[in-house]
Amino acid sequence: MKSKFLVMYLLLAVSFTAFGQEKQSSKAKKQSSAVVEQGLIKVSIMYPFAEGKSFDMAYYASKHMPMVAGFLGSNLVKYTIEKGLSNGMPNQPLPYVAIGTFYVKSLSDYQAAIGPHREAIRADFANYTNIIPIILVSEVVR
Amino acid sequence: MKSKFLVMYLLLAVSFTAFGQEKQSSKAKKQSSAVVEQGLIKVSIMYPFAEGKSFDMAYYASKHMPMVAGFLGSNLVKYTIEKGLSNGMPNQPLPYVAIGTFYVKSLSDYQAAIGPHREAIRADFANYTNIIPIILVSEVVR
Repeated sequence: MKSKFLVMYLLLAVSFTAFGQEKQSSKAKKQSSAVVEQGLIKVSIMYPFAEGKSFDMAYYASKHMPMVAGFLGSNLVKYTIEKGLSNGMPNQPLPYVAIGTFYVKSLSDYQAAIGPHREAIRADFANYTNIIPIILVSEVVR
Repeated sequence: MKSKFLVMYLLLAVSFTAFGQEKQSSKAKKQSSAVVEQGLIKVSIMYPFAEGKSFDMAYYASKHMPMVAGFLGSNLVKYTIEKGLSNGMPNQPLPYVAIGTFYVKSLSDYQAAIGPHREAIRADFANYTNIIPIILVSEVVR
């Protein structure tokens, strides 16, 4: 009888431990996904709108951005693509037709990784746009 | 004796069920956080850099952005703040000193929620900057 209670106690202990750890790791994941972006460097390639200019979003999203992302290795945390819709102020022109953003841990590692591929990246521009982009380097505050 | 085994079996079943559900909900959370941003609307309030202009990031991050976010209710998925560091092109001026971005499900709900508070939001500008922002409305492609 005593051994049965021991087994039951152990089972209970194990199950609560497993449950507790799972809860904790889930919480930790949630916290880390919320916190991990803070302090990251964003390199945003912003394509200004102008009459008569073109931008092929399908090529950009399926070819150009994945190519550049492929050069960045483990320094790249994620990359995003957004499509400009409108100016938030009435009767003002669209500021940007598209923005591609690389979230990296280190700007110098980004620059070192891009350096040897700069010409290949520039040569690919003609495949999707005739817009000269503006590049903003920023830090995630929140 | 039989009842003891029944209790043990129930304990086991409960503990595995709890463990399984916790794992599943953790996985679901992870998946949803990766997928949910696609298709969201970003409203980005971009503060261009100019000599002699000022921007109080501490006030912006602790007072202004939380105030506006508070007006948006469940339409707001998240908001981010970034601090401009440099131009990605050598010898070019910093494009933006700061960008605040609201990720919302619906632009019309955003506009309806902001409308009644527009004057309060504008009046608060003077507390942290003398820069007139550019507002980009865009869609998350990826």
